[in-house]
Amino acid sequence: MNDGPRADSAAWLVATLTGHKRTLAVAESLTGGLLAAEFVRVPGASAVFAGGIIAYNTELKHTLLGVDAGLLATHGPVHPDVAAQMALGVRTRLAIGGNPVDIGLSTTGVAGPGPQDGHPAGTVFAGIAIGDRVDILSLSLEGTRETIRAQVVSELLAHVEIVLKSSGQLEGR
Amino acid sequence: MNDGPRADSAAWLVATLTGHKRTLAVAESLTGGLLAAEFVRVPGASAVFAGGIIAYNTELKHTLLGVDAGLLATHGPVHPDVAAQMALGVRTRLAIGGNPVDIGLSTTGVAGPGPQDGHPAGTVFAGIAIGDRVDILSLSLEGTRETIRAQVVSELLAHVEIVLKSSGQLEGR
Repeated sequence: MNDGPRADSAAWLVATLTGHKRTLAVAESLTGGLLAAEFVRVPGASAVFAGGIIAYNTELKHTLLGVDAGLLATHGPVHPDVAAQMALGVRTRLAIGGNPVDIGLSTTGVAGPGPQDGHPAGTVFAGIAIGDRVDILSLSLEGTRETIRAQVVSELLAHVEIVLKSSGQLEGR
Repeated sequence: MNDGPRADSAAWLVATLTGHKRTLAVAESLTGGLLAAEFVRVPGASAVFAGGIIAYNTELKHTLLGVDAGLLATHGPVHPDVAAQMALGVRTRLAIGGNPVDIGLSTTGVAGPGPQDGHPAGTVFAGIAIGDRVDILSLSLEGTRETIRAQVVSELLAHVEIVLKSSGQLEGR
């Protein structure tokens, strides 16, 4: 058995969540669709992947995902609490048959080039909401706009695998 | 001057729409984030690109984008009218400061492998809503799940360029 990082975390997640009848949705800012694209790339993803909201514009993080407007006004969109609220918000906004999706993933941060809202390029917060519990992944990445966004996706997917295995969330259903 | 297809349609669109102060949003099904990712790849995209809704699950096309539930029940999600309603719906759902975005793009279809809802893989409808007018692009593509989705994005972007140039929609502001 290999418990190390996988070459294809998204395929592992789709297979694992399919087996446990869990669903997943994404709320993306700086990754702008790249995270969702990792899942839909996998044949059979529709059993697990409900969809996503790309709230690239800051106001949309409030209107589409329910992120607190005061939080956004005070701290801007690049903040761990924004990532947490995005991950939790997408679970209910993408409810299917009245049921929130089981797992919400989120990304917010600065892809660059150059700083934004006082944060250097590569400052990223990603959220992993499993039920009502949220883990936040804080990243300080280096690279180009393109490599930073790709790294966010791969680091987040690897972290989701760790969280799922350690949380025992996949048991009992 | 070169009026042929461009190597980088997304960059041309971002630059052109920035110059004309127009905004854009996407509603994706089978492309699942790939279309949005083309825009956020371009530095400065935030002046133009508001965000997107990935309504991969059929029910979400109704709840998140306002596609008529009867249409979905009767014809399924792979239908030109579904593409039209997705493109129009995302304009208002992603309103910023109370203003609908100017241009809504949509994709719905079968990436494969294998047929879905009676349609062969490669059957795709894409919508281009500029204001309240919608153009529909009907595609019958061949290839793998991955190449079909990539082709949808490139054909749609090329078509947006044609529609924008021929509609005169970029004048007068």
